[in-house]
Amino acid sequence: MPFPLPDARLLAMLHEDIPYGDATTRGLSIGEMPGRATFATRSTMVACCVEEAERIMLLAGCRSVQRFHSSGAQIEAGSDLLLAEGSAAALHRGAKVAQTLMEVASGVATRARRILLAAREGRPHAAVACTRKHLPGTKDVMLKAIMAGGCAPHRLGLSDSVVVFPQHRAFLGRKPPYLWVADLRASQPERKITVEAESVDEVTWFASAGVDCVQVDKLSPEQIAEAVRAMAGMSKRPMIAATGGVNETNARAYAEAGADLLVTSAPYSAPPADISVRMTSA
Amino acid sequence: MPFPLPDARLLAMLHEDIPYGDATTRGLSIGEMPGRATFATRSTMVACCVEEAERIMLLAGCRSVQRFHSSGAQIEAGSDLLLAEGSAAALHRGAKVAQTLMEVASGVATRARRILLAAREGRPHAAVACTRKHLPGTKDVMLKAIMAGGCAPHRLGLSDSVVVFPQHRAFLGRKPPYLWVADLRASQPERKITVEAESVDEVTWFASAGVDCVQVDKLSPEQIAEAVRAMAGMSKRPMIAATGGVNETNARAYAEAGADLLVTSAPYSAPPADISVRMTSA
Amino acid sequence: MPFPLPDARLLAMLHEDIPYGDATTRGLSIGEMPGRATFATRSTMVACCVEEAERIMLLAGCRSVQRFHSSGAQIEAGSDLLLAEGSAAALHRGAKVAQTLMEVASGVATRARRILLAAREGRPHAAVACTRKHLPGTKDVMLKAIMAGGCAPHRLGLSDSVVVFPQHRAFLGRKPPYLWVADLRASQPERKITVEAESVDEVTWFASAGVDCVQVDKLSPEQIAEAVRAMAGMSKRPMIAATGGVNETNARAYAEAGADLLVTSAPYSAPPADISVRMTSA
Amino acid sequence: MPFPLPDARLLAMLHEDIPYGDATTRGLSIGEMPGRATFATRSTMVACCVEEAERIMLLAGCRSVQRFHSSGAQIEAGSDLLLAEGSAAALHRGAKVAQTLMEVASGVATRARRILLAAREGRPHAAVACTRKHLPGTKDVMLKAIMAGGCAPHRLGLSDSVVVFPQHRAFLGRKPPYLWVADLRASQPERKITVEAESVDEVTWFASAGVDCVQVDKLSPEQIAEAVRAMAGMSKRPMIAATGGVNETNARAYAEAGADLLVTSAPYSAPPADISVRMTSA
Amino acid sequence: MPFPLPDARLLAMLHEDIPYGDATTRGLSIGEMPGRATFATRSTMVACCVEEAERIMLLAGCRSVQRFHSSGAQIEAGSDLLLAEGSAAALHRGAKVAQTLMEVASGVATRARRILLAAREGRPHAAVACTRKHLPGTKDVMLKAIMAGGCAPHRLGLSDSVVVFPQHRAFLGRKPPYLWVADLRASQPERKITVEAESVDEVTWFASAGVDCVQVDKLSPEQIAEAVRAMAGMSKRPMIAATGGVNETNARAYAEAGADLLVTSAPYSAPPADISVRMTSA
Amino acid sequence: MPFPLPDARLLAMLHEDIPYGDATTRGLSIGEMPGRATFATRSTMVACCVEEAERIMLLAGCRSVQRFHSSGAQIEAGSDLLLAEGSAAALHRGAKVAQTLMEVASGVATRARRILLAAREGRPHAAVACTRKHLPGTKDVMLKAIMAGGCAPHRLGLSDSVVVFPQHRAFLGRKPPYLWVADLRASQPERKITVEAESVDEVTWFASAGVDCVQVDKLSPEQIAEAVRAMAGMSKRPMIAATGGVNETNARAYAEAGADLLVTSAPYSAPPADISVRMTSA
Repeated sequence: MPFPLPDARLLAMLHEDIPYGDATTRGLSIGEMPGRATFATRSTMVACCVEEAERIMLLAGCRSVQRFHSSGAQIEAGSDLLLAEGSAAALHRGAKVAQTLMEVASGVATRARRILLAAREGRPHAAVACTRKHLPGTKDVMLKAIMAGGCAPHRLGLSDSVVVFPQHRAFLGRKPPYLWVADLRASQPERKITVEAESVDEVTWFASAGVDCVQVDKLSPEQIAEAVRAMAGMSKRPMIAATGGVNETNARAYAEAGADLLVTSAPYSAPPADISVRMTSA
Repeated sequence: MPFPLPDARLLAMLHEDIPYGDATTRGLSIGEMPGRATFATRSTMVACCVEEAERIMLLAGCRSVQRFHSSGAQIEAGSDLLLAEGSAAALHRGAKVAQTLMEVASGVATRARRILLAAREGRPHAAVACTRKHLPGTKDVMLKAIMAGGCAPHRLGLSDSVVVFPQHRAFLGRKPPYLWVADLRASQPERKITVEAESVDEVTWFASAGVDCVQVDKLSPEQIAEAVRAMAGMSKRPMIAATGGVNETNARAYAEAGADLLVTSAPYSAPPADISVRMTSA
Repeated sequence: MPFPLPDARLLAMLHEDIPYGDATTRGLSIGEMPGRATFATRSTMVACCVEEAERIMLLAGCRSVQRFHSSGAQIEAGSDLLLAEGSAAALHRGAKVAQTLMEVASGVATRARRILLAAREGRPHAAVACTRKHLPGTKDVMLKAIMAGGCAPHRLGLSDSVVVFPQHRAFLGRKPPYLWVADLRASQPERKITVEAESVDEVTWFASAGVDCVQVDKLSPEQIAEAVRAMAGMSKRPMIAATGGVNETNARAYAEAGADLLVTSAPYSAPPADISVRMTSA
Repeated sequence: MPFPLPDARLLAMLHEDIPYGDATTRGLSIGEMPGRATFATRSTMVACCVEEAERIMLLAGCRSVQRFHSSGAQIEAGSDLLLAEGSAAALHRGAKVAQTLMEVASGVATRARRILLAAREGRPHAAVACTRKHLPGTKDVMLKAIMAGGCAPHRLGLSDSVVVFPQHRAFLGRKPPYLWVADLRASQPERKITVEAESVDEVTWFASAGVDCVQVDKLSPEQIAEAVRAMAGMSKRPMIAATGGVNETNARAYAEAGADLLVTSAPYSAPPADISVRMTSA
Repeated sequence: MPFPLPDARLLAMLHEDIPYGDATTRGLSIGEMPGRATFATRSTMVACCVEEAERIMLLAGCRSVQRFHSSGAQIEAGSDLLLAEGSAAALHRGAKVAQTLMEVASGVATRARRILLAAREGRPHAAVACTRKHLPGTKDVMLKAIMAGGCAPHRLGLSDSVVVFPQHRAFLGRKPPYLWVADLRASQPERKITVEAESVDEVTWFASAGVDCVQVDKLSPEQIAEAVRAMAGMSKRPMIAATGGVNETNARAYAEAGADLLVTSAPYSAPPADISVRMTSA
Repeated sequence: MPFPLPDARLLAMLHEDIPYGDATTRGLSIGEMPGRATFATRSTMVACCVEEAERIMLLAGCRSVQRFHSSGAQIEAGSDLLLAEGSAAALHRGAKVAQTLMEVASGVATRARRILLAAREGRPHAAVACTRKHLPGTKDVMLKAIMAGGCAPHRLGLSDSVVVFPQHRAFLGRKPPYLWVADLRASQPERKITVEAESVDEVTWFASAGVDCVQVDKLSPEQIAEAVRAMAGMSKRPMIAATGGVNETNARAYAEAGADLLVTSAPYSAPPADISVRMTSA
């Protein structure tokens, strides 16, 4: 199960939507009436942030919330997710934020799961990692969602991992890779060294320099297969990660081609899941 | 031109990506070499957050940044957006955050613009407003992006506007609309009163209760047209806003049907624009 | 009932007053003794932030708190508001912040209520809205307080409403009002268009340009009445809001003069209510 | 000169007022026109937060700001305070926050100065300290304002000073004052020990226990004088601070009565100064 | 008992260590197994932040936590401190942060206590105050720890106390001390006036100027004794505080020499206490 | 060169020390006098946070600051570090925070460097990584300091790395290591798998299960050497990291024993460097 978002994050979401109270509920003078709100999914989806939605409703002042599913669960269309009870003011204060958070996060989780399943049709133990190319400021939600979908985070950012891009090599001149790989190992002995390659030749070149992983950008599955074959004779070959345009329709082909890992940003712009909120006075 | 995001927001984005420095650049010992980074768009797009990307590169420590376009501009594929100069450390510190922010925001702006243009094919002065159904916590970026696309924000949240949903009416029992419309007017004299209707009958019912705007959820363009005709004889009819599934392919039809306003969430899950970052040592 | 202030806000208030513990209570070695604190009002007032005071005492570590009144209630001098039980450390940690917050907020609410009641003597359904001219950074408390007094918030800020001031018109040159009113309607289709006028002539001029509301600054009640008469023949006249110096002593006259709405900043500098805190060891 | 408020505080004020841009300026399409704004005082006042207002206008994007006065200066009605130049968007973004901050802070400073001057009519070197009974969360502005007025801060909160109230003594039973004064001295050797007294008898009782300061609550100037006389024979008498209802009209009498220090909360609810903002297109 | 750290502070500590979940526990799929964690001290120590560690474990999601000791208690090696029960995910989420906070804070408290006890061997009622020379940003933990050790905070910062250093006197030219002491008294009537002296001569010079406290920097115990003797004839001599290099080995000598107060920064770099965490599946 | 701390962090440090201005400088009326402050080191040290100290002095309002050294530089006793020029108010506002930050960070960096140099006497390319066992909330300063000393960060926290401790194995029952190593590889394909061993037998046991790194806790250098010999015949042996009590005096022995990496927390409680601040009026 992925990690929980902290209350401070959820309270900031509520505050963004309702900084000075709910003008409509107050104007209608219905705020103190007791009621209940049922959240249900209209689409089949992988759920995400249901726990956070439960917590949001409590933070909004609801008396009690029942939760019927967990982040990471595959859920059929029509299923209830949450039942919240409390005053109309509390229900309205939290409902839209809770709904929208679940919709966006579940949309991401659902697409992440589909890419993973497609990759595993190509090879049973294929792994999928998701990049840091989400809207800045949303890493917690996005990582939670792709984990709910069964994918791994690729790198959290610049401080936790070592990935050499062409943009780094622009500053390395003619320094041979084995030298800067050695520098990186000395500097970060406990992290894998990854290099991004843009051609089959680069893959073998970096592989022979001793990197732990070659991340191959925008090559076709056929080219990936060729790169894997080219390293066949190596005593210890690096992991091959395919990246650049990996999505639901080509994940199987990349996995079949022999990529050890698929790296993708596709889930982050998935359409939101469709979740309804029905309220009744109690 | 839409509003600027404050530095504190941009710094939080940088901090999320690079909390404890860039392990790769440090390990390669290239951080103090001078260089330049060119950001260019590979796709035709409506730009957004170019100013913020410029600022991010400066906050990351670049010596100077040139900006070639502004938020809201329609830009051809292949165009340069920014040229940043500074140390390799500064360039790498900011580049991915600047790039990804522009990609996501420009993707949203581009789809918002397309929906607006489609609507205006249906009626020259049609207006499009975008909802609050984006990922909670991203309202500033999302509103900036849809404004860059030419759309208006629908409501900022619960505190700034009055919209009566079926979820409110669940608490109103058999109270006739004209009575709760009067309550709302007394409570919020300076705001328009909007009610969401789910059928043509409800549109006319609420119209006769004196609301300022009827927001019609998930009706077809034909039903919208019918609703508009049904109000033809009224001395002062409310504005009609079509919502629920409005997107690029049906915006023209909704506008032709007579909707005064189209309300949509579609831009928020637009695919990101494709922006490249090329670096050279200087 | 107005909206609750979030815990984070209340904790910041506590932290401001007691960042590193209570030197007096610690020095006296009385912190762990059980006790109770009774908060009572010495003046007749409209209560505000009693719920927040209750919450502050709990956040300060009290074992239990009883609350006897709610925000918005008219309370007689001598009435108890809260009874908190807990250690002397907890009682002292929270008491002054809880007391002062209630005193300031109730002072604002009480003056807001008086202005509202004065206006309603002038016309039974007169409405009073309060401006954004409070100390920056205090909008949440101030809006809660004026709502507790029965007033509406005027505008939350620059992002949620459209009000054209002379300071805007300085940039509009000789552009006729009907043109810029049209621009504003196209840009913000779901918001009312308000213009501030400084003379009776301006009122009628803007009225004929089709605005939704004319906010009249610093005119006498007589001039307001004249403006209302001047618009008598219009098929659809805008709402008239009187602003600039509206207070407890002239609210009735402005309401009698025909202003639809009174807009005032007077409550924000009301003297604080007088609330006592009595402690006993338990 | 009092201390500056940090940028983060000023940016939060701006963000509170204009979270998602200025709908009016944007709707009028005047944002990029160059202009100037002149801030002037309509009332004679002690200025406060002029430096902060200058900074707010720069943070709002103005090209340049000239400042004509400093916090703490006595300024004649009609005097210009600031001249800001920049785009209409920048001018409007900052003007109201800058204006209102100066109005509230200068109102407080002006009343603080008046109380100080009244006290000094009573005795040339009388000092005035202002309490912590301001709206929680506003300590920085309020302390800056009373310092601008020439007053001292009384205590910052519970962590920086030792003041024994009746609410503490409720937990001390029959323990004689000299014992708990000794406890406090041992615990806080570098701070003065202050005790609040509610009668002339208590003043002498605490004085003989060796406290550094007796804070006398709600006694008349005559009673203060009596207390001072009662301590006349002591080899080392404590400082006498008069508190509880001290204001502009009675400060002179309290100072004449012999109070070493006047402690007051009266400035915090002073009416705001009246500051105008005039804009012209440049 | 020292003051509690607020939840927001503890949550920030957790977030620093575990921003996006625990990769190990998740990868092992053990997160939902029930377990218990026992925290015990391997070294004899003065405990600090045990309450905060208890709270951290609850904030991390533990079902229950038992606490066996309080901040300020002297604890024998081998004693249990806390027993937490909950899921493996919750136990691992909080354990290291809780452990490390207790280790660092208890290390500081233990050294503070030792210095205090050493001083009291020199003179039974000697007091020890700890400076503000800790890592900036850690004042709350550090002050809590030295209070747990029995020491007092020296000054909280620049706003709460008056201490004249040679760095101030560099700007005072030949102005005689009695004059600037008078200025300080007028400006801060409720605070003691402290001056830092660097020689015995300066001690007597400042003493005769009427300061409340002379803080003597880097003099030997013998010089302190000499300074005390030099003031023997004064009717009212200031408090003498010894500072600069005061630590566990010389505290007794400084106290014997007659210093009223010892001021030290030594506790802040104390080695951490050694606390073990043992986990079992339940 | 290590990463810069963001302004928001430095401003929070300033705010902690000087929330409401400098009472001493204000009371002495010297705030507006021009002056200069020279920071110099009294001890030989590895500098750290000199750039941050420079920035702090500018944020405090200094007119200009010259910096003579960079983080990571070895500096002789007596060397100047910074020369700041500005008003006495600005100099005093920033000096202590700038000084103390450099003192603590340079103390940590200096000890980190010494441990690294000691290790390299044992083996020229030995590497030293520093743990996360610093005071929670100080990771940025502590990581910057150990990087300045030449060490690597060990793990940033729980989200960026995979380390299996005995506390995890308590939940794994009799599951053989090769199975849970496989689970971890599938879950985190791009991260090294590290396991903590507490005996030579465990080292070989985990090595044969295919982990990337065995972290050996509290074994002697002799035991480390034995473990290295025991793995001599393995075709691909894991990296061996020695941890638990590694410090300046034993680092050489651990490196000679064959540990690939030394992991230590010792720098975090290093005594602060001794840095003086001299001020003169200009």
